[in-house]
Amino acid sequence: MQRSDIPVYVQVRNQLWQWVQKQQLGSQERLPAERELAARFNTTRVTVRQALGQLEAEGVIFRSNRRGWYITPQRLIYDPSVDIGFYKTVIEQGLTPRTETLSKRLIETPNWLADISGMEKGAPIYHIVRRRSVDLRCVVVEHNYINPLGCPGLLDQDMDLSIWKLLREQYDLLPGQRNIEIFPQALTGVEAEALGVNSGSAGLYMQRLTLDKSGTFLEYDREYWIHDALKVAVQVNNN
Amino acid sequence: MQRSDIPVYVQVRNQLWQWVQKQQLGSQERLPAERELAARFNTTRVTVRQALGQLEAEGVIFRSNRRGWYITPQRLIYDPSVDIGFYKTVIEQGLTPRTETLSKRLIETPNWLADISGMEKGAPIYHIVRRRSVDLRCVVVEHNYINPLGCPGLLDQDMDLSIWKLLREQYDLLPGQRNIEIFPQALTGVEAEALGVNSGSAGLYMQRLTLDKSGTFLEYDREYWIHDALKVAVQVNNN
Repeated sequence: MQRSDIPVYVQVRNQLWQWVQKQQLGSQERLPAERELAARFNTTRVTVRQALGQLEAEGVIFRSNRRGWYITPQRLIYDPSVDIGFYKTVIEQGLTPRTETLSKRLIETPNWLADISGMEKGAPIYHIVRRRSVDLRCVVVEHNYINPLGCPGLLDQDMDLSIWKLLREQYDLLPGQRNIEIFPQALTGVEAEALGVNSGSAGLYMQRLTLDKSGTFLEYDREYWIHDALKVAVQVNNN
Repeated sequence: MQRSDIPVYVQVRNQLWQWVQKQQLGSQERLPAERELAARFNTTRVTVRQALGQLEAEGVIFRSNRRGWYITPQRLIYDPSVDIGFYKTVIEQGLTPRTETLSKRLIETPNWLADISGMEKGAPIYHIVRRRSVDLRCVVVEHNYINPLGCPGLLDQDMDLSIWKLLREQYDLLPGQRNIEIFPQALTGVEAEALGVNSGSAGLYMQRLTLDKSGTFLEYDREYWIHDALKVAVQVNNN
């Protein structure tokens, strides 16, 4: 078989991936070290890195903080037309969610947020930053901006589970209308740092504007996901 | 003001982006050459490239086939819960769609597609590959796999508009249930080449399985989008 038109690193990628599948490595299990792979596939470390980079781009392996390469877990399935929230989404898929609150404070509504939310510029608003994990893998940094009017003392509460559960059960606040936007965007700055990836790494951005049933602004949310952790899935019935 | 903790390329990125906005460069307008930008901002071409790479990662500028850097157009807004198709989506947003058919043929259903579609392995199925543009910018390569049972002679038709319009108007075929999945995935191989981007560039992948109203397989579709051309937008009403 003529193989000379396939770049060497693609050939190594194919051999490597076949081998990994034969080993039946499971979710988040570690691949052998690069020099070991280079020896096994009789090639250079440069080529092994290219092959690994290719598999990373495809989202089937990921690198963790210079500690090595690992098998990417199944993507979390998220249906924006239902939008049941991170905590419930993860639990329902048999996975383990974890949330760390990085900061929570009362700030003055900045101009850009006033434009989006209809809050007055400078009016007090809660700003909560959290990092969330699935099976101990950090997958998203989330910024929540919440209208404090209906939920005094919110910042004294534990934010490490679901904010919407808190709003519903402690404050009787329910979402009316939600506008959700999702698109690919590179991770940079504090979000990249908090997620342990290089600035400029591929990511998925999501924002969510929530009004209550009377049309009053309740919450605005910005989420910065690593590129390989989430899949949007929607079912449409025209019946 | 202390600025020494901000990397030089980030400072140049900020100056450059401020300057671009002051020039009021519009969608798909070209930025000055890199050496001109280096001179203007009194820095090296290496640093200018880092700053441009940062703006590219943010999705606000894009590179076109080594011909230079351009302002990224507004993202196309796509609502999977409505899913009206590329052609109508582009037209309704006041933009100009264009479609080129790269190949169309009758193939034998491969194993992976038999598993997804319920077609028999080896059974004949249409495979159509098209490249689609918005305002002359190539944004997506699409693979359509269509059950030929209800649409004999489909390949003789002009595929350069909407396939679903054809199926509806010529063959009376209507979608019943659709399962749509969307996630970030790097562009590689023939898709990267057809879109004029480097293999490994950030992209957005979409697939769509369509059954008719009686549950019979009609069409399966795989779309490979450049990273900055599409935004998923969904509105949820809990009222």
